[in-house]
Order: sequence, then C-alpha cells, then structure tokens
Amino acid sequence: MEEFTQAPIAEELAKRQKSISVAEFFEKNRHILGFDSAPRALITTVKEAVDNSLDACEEAGYLPDILVQINRAENDYLTIIIEDNGPGIVKEQIPKVFAKLLYGSRFHALRQSRGQQGIGISAAVLYSQITSGKSTKIISRVDHKTPAHYFELMIDTSANEPSVLESRTTDWERPHGTRVEIEMAASYVKGRKQSVYEYLKSTAIINPHARIRLIEPDGNEILFDRATDVIPAQAEEVLPHPHGIELGTLMKMLQHTDRQKLAPFLRYSFSKIGLQTADEICEAAGLDTETDPRALTRTDAVKLLNAFKKTKIMAPSTNCLSPITEDLIYRGLKKEFSVDFIATSARKPAIHSGNPFVIEVGVAYGGNFPKEEKAQIMRFANRVPLLYQQGACAATHAIESIKWKQYGISQPGGGVPFGPFVILVHIASTNVPFTSESKDAIAGIDIIEEEIQLAVKEIGRKMKTYLGKQDDLKKRREKEVIITKLLPQMAKKVASMVGKDVPDIQPAVANIMGNLLVSRSADAGPDSQPNLHYVSLSVRNYGTAQRKFKLHQILPCEIKSPSPPPSLIVSVGVNYDYIWDVTLAAGASKVFRFAVDGMDDNEIQTMDEVIVEGLDEEDVTGAKALTELF
Amino acid sequence: MEEFTQAPIAEELAKRQKSISVAEFFEKNRHILGFDSAPRALITTVKEAVDNSLDACEEAGYLPDILVQINRAENDYLTIIIEDNGPGIVKEQIPKVFAKLLYGSRFHALRQSRGQQGIGISAAVLYSQITSGKSTKIISRVDHKTPAHYFELMIDTSANEPSVLESRTTDWERPHGTRVEIEMAASYVKGRKQSVYEYLKSTAIINPHARIRLIEPDGNEILFDRATDVIPAQAEEVLPHPHGIELGTLMKMLQHTDRQKLAPFLRYSFSKIGLQTADEICEAAGLDTETDPRALTRTDAVKLLNAFKKTKIMAPSTNCLSPITEDLIYRGLKKEFSVDFIATSARKPAIHSGNPFVIEVGVAYGGNFPKEEKAQIMRFANRVPLLYQQGACAATHAIESIKWKQYGISQPGGGVPFGPFVILVHIASTNVPFTSESKDAIAGIDIIEEEIQLAVKEIGRKMKTYLGKQDDLKKRREKEVIITKLLPQMAKKVASMVGKDVPDIQPAVANIMGNLLVSRSADAGPDSQPNLHYVSLSVRNYGTAQRKFKLHQILPCEIKSPSPPPSLIVSVGVNYDYIWDVTLAAGASKVFRFAVDGMDDNEIQTMDEVIVEGLDEEDVTGAKALTELF
Repeated sequence: MEEFTQAPIAEELAKRQKSISVAEFFEKNRHILGFDSAPRALITTVKEAVDNSLDACEEAGYLPDILVQINRAENDYLTIIIEDNGPGIVKEQIPKVFAKLLYGSRFHALRQSRGQQGIGISAAVLYSQITSGKSTKIISRVDHKTPAHYFELMIDTSANEPSVLESRTTDWERPHGTRVEIEMAASYVKGRKQSVYEYLKSTAIINPHARIRLIEPDGNEILFDRATDVIPAQAEEVLPHPHGIELGTLMKMLQHTDRQKLAPFLRYSFSKIGLQTADEICEAAGLDTETDPRALTRTDAVKLLNAFKKTKIMAPSTNCLSPITEDLIYRGLKKEFSVDFIATSARKPAIHSGNPFVIEVGVAYGGNFPKEEKAQIMRFANRVPLLYQQGACAATHAIESIKWKQYGISQPGGGVPFGPFVILVHIASTNVPFTSESKDAIAGIDIIEEEIQLAVKEIGRKMKTYLGKQDDLKKRREKEVIITKLLPQMAKKVASMVGKDVPDIQPAVANIMGNLLVSRSADAGPDSQPNLHYVSLSVRNYGTAQRKFKLHQILPCEIKSPSPPPSLIVSVGVNYDYIWDVTLAAGASKVFRFAVDGMDDNEIQTMDEVIVEGLDEEDVTGAKALTELF
Repeated sequence: MEEFTQAPIAEELAKRQKSISVAEFFEKNRHILGFDSAPRALITTVKEAVDNSLDACEEAGYLPDILVQINRAENDYLTIIIEDNGPGIVKEQIPKVFAKLLYGSRFHALRQSRGQQGIGISAAVLYSQITSGKSTKIISRVDHKTPAHYFELMIDTSANEPSVLESRTTDWERPHGTRVEIEMAASYVKGRKQSVYEYLKSTAIINPHARIRLIEPDGNEILFDRATDVIPAQAEEVLPHPHGIELGTLMKMLQHTDRQKLAPFLRYSFSKIGLQTADEICEAAGLDTETDPRALTRTDAVKLLNAFKKTKIMAPSTNCLSPITEDLIYRGLKKEFSVDFIATSARKPAIHSGNPFVIEVGVAYGGNFPKEEKAQIMRFANRVPLLYQQGACAATHAIESIKWKQYGISQPGGGVPFGPFVILVHIASTNVPFTSESKDAIAGIDIIEEEIQLAVKEIGRKMKTYLGKQDDLKKRREKEVIITKLLPQMAKKVASMVGKDVPDIQPAVANIMGNLLVSRSADAGPDSQPNLHYVSLSVRNYGTAQRKFKLHQILPCEIKSPSPPPSLIVSVGVNYDYIWDVTLAAGASKVFRFAVDGMDDNEIQTMDEVIVEGLDEEDVTGAKALTELF
C-alpha cells in the first residue's frame, strides 16, 4: 500500500463535508413542504397564497377580496393566479418575500396568524422553478398614489437568495394589493375532499368576512361571498408567558436583555408579571431584584424557573388569540350540514412551550351522514383548514384515544368512531406546532392532545345525552306517527261526512302528546303596501307542567310595532334573529304580534320556520325545536 | 388623522420583515425534528447519534461497536452518551458537524445512507441547550497516532453557527471513534414499543453486523451482540437516472456543467446513458450532439426531457442501494417472533424524482400474536426503524388501502387489518422522502405507495394460500389428535398387559396419516471424547406419492464425515445450517449420518429440531416443517 493511503480515513471523509442551503434542502425534500403530488402541489400553492392574503388584509384592516384563478398552460402544467386587495408589499421587500426561504414578518411575533414560518409562498416559487423552469410573476401596489411594481423572480437555491429577472413599474387596476402568477406541474381535481374548491369552501366557512372568487380551468366561476362585514378582532402581539418557558430560552433572554435590573427584566420580558409579582419571583428565587440579569448564571436561571412555578401568576391573556368562537362554529356547522343535533365546546386557554393556545370543537350529528362509516374529522389551525395527513394529527389521535362506547357510539377497530357525524376541531395559537413545514397536521404534544381530548369528551357526553333521549323519543314518535297519521284521516272522513272543511288537527295532536303547540299566521296589509304583513306567533302549552323556552323568528328585515317586544335581537349576517323569552304555565297560551315591511307574499310564505330553543323536539308541535343553541 | 399616518400600511409592515436563521426556525419548531415530548426527545437523540455511528463505521469499513449510556442528571434531566469505534471526525470539522444545522457529507451524494440531511445530531444539540442550557461534549479521535480532541459546543442560533466553549486534546482509550455527551429534558421509558430498548433491538435485527451495548439509567446493561462479521456491501454513489428528472433540475444541470458538448454532458451527468444512448437522445430531441449544453434554452430542455421518455434507457442500477434482502428479513422475523408462517417479498427497483428505491416486505403470522387486535406494522427506511407517526406513513396508507377480505383477513373499520401477524416494510433509497425532518414517516408519494401495495399484496396472496390450507389442516389435525392421543394410550396399555416396553408409535402415526416420518438418534463416542457424538437422521415416506424436500440441521459447530455429504452448508451467525436435498419415493426411506465433535451430551439433547423445508406441517411427523424458507 502506498504511503499516502495511511492518512486517517476521517480526512478523506472530511472533504465531503459541506454546508447545505435551506433552499437546496427543500429542493431535495419538497414533499416536506406539501409538494409530493400534482394535485397537492396546487392546493399547497393556493393555500399559502390565500393564507398570506388573509393575514395581510387583516393586518391592514381591509375586508379581504381575493381572486383565485387556475389556467391550463403548456405541457399539462397549470398557471395559478392569486390576487388580493391587501396592503401590498413595498418594492424592496418583494424579492425576499417571494424568493427567499425563511424570510417573513410573523416568525418572531407572539400573535396568532396563519403564516408563521416565512416558507410557504417561496416554497411554491421553488417548486415552480424545479418543475416548469419558469419564473414567478408578481405585481404589488401599496396605495393609489404609487404605481404598481412588476417582478419576475426565481430562487438561487445554492445561496437561498432571490434572483431578479425583471423589475419595473406597471399598470394595475387595483388601488392596493398583490398578485402572484406561478406556473408548475400540478393538477386540478374536482369532487374530492382534497381539492381547491373544498379548501376554499372550508376557508370561507370560518372566515365569513372574506370574499373569495374561484375561476376554474374550464372558466367556471364560483363565488364564496362574505357573510359578514365585521373583520375579526385583530390578535394582539404579547410577551411570552413565564409558564412553559424553557431553561435555555430563559438563559438566552437574560443574556440578551437591555434591562440592567432583574425585576424590570421580568416585568417587561414576560406577560402577566407586574411590579409585585416580579418581587415575589425574585424572593422565591432568592435573587436580588436589583441584580443585573445579564450576570446571572445557569444555576440562577434554574432558580428563577422554579420560582415561576412557585409564584402565583395569572393565566395568559388571550387577546393574542382569535378563536372562531362556539357561536360561529355552531353557525358554520348548521349552515354546512343539515343535521339533527349540534353541540360545541371550547376549552380555557392553555400553554405549550410558552405559547398560549385554545381548543374549540363542534359536532354535527344525524342528517344525511352515512351511519356505517367513520365519522368525518374537520381540522382547522388558526382558521386554516387542514386537508392532508389526518392520520398524523394530534386531533385525530385525541379522538381515536377516546373510548367512544361510553358515549353509546361504536368504534370498530378502535380508531376513529363510526356513525353519522362530523367532528370539527380548531386550535388557535401564537405558534401552532405542526408536524412539518407543510402545516398539515398538529404535532403530538401532550398538553395539546389532552386539551383536544377533554373538549371532545365534553361533546361526547352531550352526544350521549342526546342519543339516550332518542330511545324514549323513538317510542314517542311511533305514538305520534300513529296519531298524526290516523287523526288527519279521521278528520277528513268526518269532515266529508258532515260536509264541512277539514279541521286543523295540530292542536289535537299537541293535546294528546302533551306538547307545546306553535302556530304562525300572516295577514297581508293594504293593497297599496304589498310588502307589509302582520304576523302573529301563537304558543300554547298542552303539557302538565310549566315550560320555559326562547322563541326565535329569523327574518331578512326589521320588524315593526312588536307586541310584546322581543327580549333580544341578534344580527346574523344579512338576517335578524328576533328572540322572545317565554314562560308558559301548564295549559296557558300567548300570542306575539309584529308587522313586517319588506317581504312580498311569496317571501312571507317561505320565511324561516319558528324555532323553539330549550325544549326537546318531541315536546314541540308546529315549530323546530333545538335543545340548546350554545 | 395626522399627516404621517398617511404612509402606505405596507411600509409599516415592511419594518417587521426579516431573515430567519434555520437554527431559529427549528428552535421554535423543535417538534418537527422529533423533540415534542420528553420520551421522544431521548429516542430521537439516540437514533440520530447511532445512525451517524453506523454510517461512519460502514463508510470506513469497520464492524460497528457502539455504546449507548443513559444517566440521570440533576433536575430530572438525562445525560446521554453515545460512543463508537468509527473513523472519527477531523478536529476542524467537529464544531460544524455537531453545532450547525444543514451541514453534512451525505446530502449531495446519490447513495443510500441513514443520515442524509445534516440536521439530526445538531438538532439534539439545539434541543439540549434550549432545555438544559448546557453545552454538548464531544471527543473524537481519527487514529492511534493522533491524540483525541475534546470540544464543548453550543449553537449560536441567530447565525446558525457553532459557538466553541472549549477545545483541547484529551486522553481516550479508543484508537479511533467519536463520543458525544449531551444533557437534556428527556425521560427514559421501558416496556413500550416506543423506547430506546425497542429502537436498539430493531436496529440490531436489521444490522446484524453491529454490536450495541446499552447501559440504562439504573445501571442495567444489555448487549445486542452481532450475529455476523460481514459488513453489508457499501452502497456506491451513482449519477442521477434520466427518468424522473424534472425540467427545472435539468435546466440547472445544463447551466452549471463543465462539459462543452451535449452528448458527453448526457453521458457523464446521468447513469445508464452510454455513447449510443446519448446519440439516440440527441436525435430524438432534434438537438446536435455537439451543441454547448450551457447554451440550451428552456424549450430545448423540454425537448431533452421528452427524448428521455422516448429513448430506451436501462433501469437504474441498484449498487447505490443496500437492501436488507429477503433472506435477512426472513431470518430477522424468525429470530424475533415464534410464529407459524413467514413470507417475504421484494420489488424490483423503481424511481421517484430520479432517486432509485427498493421495497422489501415480510409477514410473520400466528404464534402468540393476539388474534383480535390490529396487525403490527414494523417500518424501516435505509435500515433505520421508524417508531413514530405510523398513521402518517405511506407504508401504513398502502397497507390500509388494500382490501384484506380478499385474502381472508378481517379489516374492521377499513384500516389496518386485524389478526395475529406483523407486517415488516423496508424502503431502501438514495433519498427516502420523509414527511418531516424527524424522519418518522415516509411521504405519500404515489409510486412509493404503489410499490409497497404491490409487495404487500403478494404477501397477502401467500397468506391466503396458507390460511386456505388451515381449514383442511384443521380437520386433519383433529384426526391426528385422536390418533396421537389414542394410540399412545393403547400402546401403553398393551405394553403393560404383555409386560414389554412402550413402543415408539410415531411410525404408526406417520403411517396412518400418510406422512413423512423424521427421527433422529445420537450415540455417544468413546469416553475419552465426551464431546464426540454420532448422529443419524432417518426419513421415511409413508405417503402414496414421491416427496421432494430439503432437510435442515442447524448446529453450533462443524460436522465430520457426513454420509451422504450435505448439498449445502450455510453459515448463520455463529451457527451452521447443514442442508440435504432429498427425493423420496412413496414408501422409501433414507438415513443421513455424521459425527459432531464439540457438543456435550446436554447440548446434543437440546440441539435444534430437524427442519423439513418444502412440505406442509400436516405432512411431517417428528420434525418441524416450513412450507418455504424464501
């Protein structure tokens, strides 16, 4: 063997060691970013662009107006255009925002937002250039006084820096906003749960303030219009909460602070630490409030961390979060699915690694859902629907880990429960921990799985109560069916025999069943006012005990001279919900009268059914019953 | 409103835009790297370090000798020590290898290895400093002539660069190798599938050339010894295969090549393109072989890509891959589980995004596996066991998507099949596409899922054949039970009546059942040689047709003067498998004789049962039957 082969093997191996740019890394591992198949590449691109548009509009306080257009290009490629009316991006930032991975504005902020990582849209640019070899075209305009700017961009992957192919001003009709045009190997699919259409539909449900227009490759146009003009409360940026902070992180904060004394450091570096709490923490840690925080050792940091645990500190504030709210989840499920039963549940805020989060869940049961199949799971994180990797998600694991038999629900195979229902899970957090950069599944962090489990279990108990009643109800219904089928026939026969009109037998049914009877009548006003009607809602309690309930009448316009006036009026999108609190003794009855000016005869006849909230369905005749709305 | 608020919102938002270092990114998203819980943090750390050790030893051609030691430290932290006898790392490289994310030697190489991303071990260092605030201690030595070097390292996360706290030579007893000592918030769990013990056990099964010693926190020591001294064939580095290359990648290759003519560019940039194929491709693309590749346009690149598809190009070579082999999978399953039936299957190499890959699967059925539970799935990628994220893995999805009822196997809930079996899936590839940097689950790439599905389906068919026979077998067994229970009792009774020894009734059973009867006898040699025995294996065919089979006798030592000599001798770890090919006419018998020098009486009495390969269990009396070994 020759002399030089005697050099250590390590030296030979060392020659191959080198730095990998983050763009090269993702060029090779693009599936991590959600680009592992042609249909998914399209959805991921649309999702990243729309997330950015929604975030930007909310930050600027604009009602989002978004266009998503998919065109066929050569070689079976697709061109994807996403356009928004957001605040635009200043010219100097555009190349980095779109063509540099790990560049963004929301990474360091402790505040709920859809985008967090500064990867999303540049990942789409990267995938576009790998597959189509083309540059991405951007137009952005910051206000009507400034011309729009046009860019053509690619990513120099070995450096992870933008490569600018063209940069010039351009004409654009929008006064402000951003437009991305991107070509890639992708495919447009329809009629699947995992599709652009379904993604936008789910997005519209939980972002009712957004208007999204989709133009499909065949030119077909779909509008997801906004249901409200109210922009959700902007989540505020907060300081980290002392609970859940880790030793290394605390040491780093101590080392880099500008504060020269420990107590002010604590007050101004953490949320929920005031003057007094800061003193208490220092005392519990056995450290002087005047100590220079930058001089503290690792041992001191350990003491501080233990003092955080010993000292009573208020729970994290939630104004950095923007949950969907149980109300909107209820309405979303109700709007989307025609079902027999809806329940929702929301947990109090909790903390993972210093990040506050809130879990909200909902269930919609019955209707047309298949009875012998797995329940559907709808997952959302910071108002973004999660379409892929259901099996990898903490939400799924939490649902699977519940023993559903205790709630009377079957669970063959021990996984996702079976039955005619959908479970919705939403996590809102300043930092949603995803299993990968493609942001498809929530990571299996214990406290998060626990919180989801607790929320879903609460819903499980509600389902059990509901399903328990179904047995009694079934028997009652059989009785009712006989009565409601027999009585009308008898009534008809008797009427024809005695030569009279067929009587209304609903009161008789209610009487036999011991129910609450609701009836509504509407009389037209003078001919000169075809849109004026006088409506009366009558209720009579045929039961043997007092009944308390809320009477809802939803209408698209305001009512006049109500008697008695409603207890509450709620604006629901373009409608109003008029609500009367009613208490009715056994055998008693009441009438609620009002005038409606703004609906024609046809509209009056097809107006929403009266809803009785607070009574079971089997106890109400002539109206829709809902056990509890919220 | 004041004047200055009139500035575009975009300018306000631009101030927050900034670069994110990859270390900062993972500091915030450590769960992506597999650090989302205390038990998992430990397993991930051990896994990353052991993967590196195995890769380094194989690269250097050393038989791996690895120590994994877990000690309890203060504050419920754990200290993790991993030590190997690998080639070591040169001093200058140590800081970057351990304390810079995205730094490594295997990222750009098209060759199968465990580590690929240059993230793993630095991720553990990052997690260690976040949770324990301590530095990581490294010792490495490249050969006996050079002293070992000691480092204490942390990561400067804002720059993603190593921060060296200490660097000096040190004494170390190993002539070459590397030792990492790392402290972190972690927990050691036992008796779970997801544990250090199970990870090392699985690793040992498919890396039979490795010796791994585990010292648990309580001081308990476990040795996973090597079963073979043969280092697996080193996977070779290859050029990318033209199939599956993408347009953007091809354009990048054209742009950056040193070749000045197209044909040589093709020959030396791709595997499986020779002189003639290069010419054919150029012709199919309508491009001159002499063209400068760097001058080609995007349109030319599209033509080349289409020409790749039209031209006949050989399948990718597989010497860049190092599959486990069906043989080792069979032995691994057999060693690990005591079962009734084993089958294996391997696919031909396929390509995803230009990367060759091979799928190998195995199934072990029966034994003590629970009958009413989900089948176990064991997943491996490049010889590394995958313990987490089973629900997210392409292997699981492929198994779930199969209609198992067609193979007579139940599948309640439509997911993972139920029954007493384990399915092993291995993917070997130059680039295993994982769903995230924690490398727990194979991404759902269509061609990979298809290949897994096809391999598992082949196994499903084998299981169906096996299970089909079980019905017949069951009836035969009932008959056999009666015979084997009745005959001995009758024999006993008759023997005692006539005052003789109880006769051996196995031949009678074989006779009645029409079986192959196998019997073995061993006679001691002279007293002066207590370890010498003369063994004879007798076989008699009681059936009505000729039988062909292989007779196996596994022994821990060599045999002498065999008559007839075995057809094949296979070295199996420390044992030898002596195999005779036998063809036996109906009613015929044969005897195989040999001497064994090296086993005492006790060892002779407890030696391995004779195995008959190629006959069904119900057709053999007096030996173990295996339908097919491979």
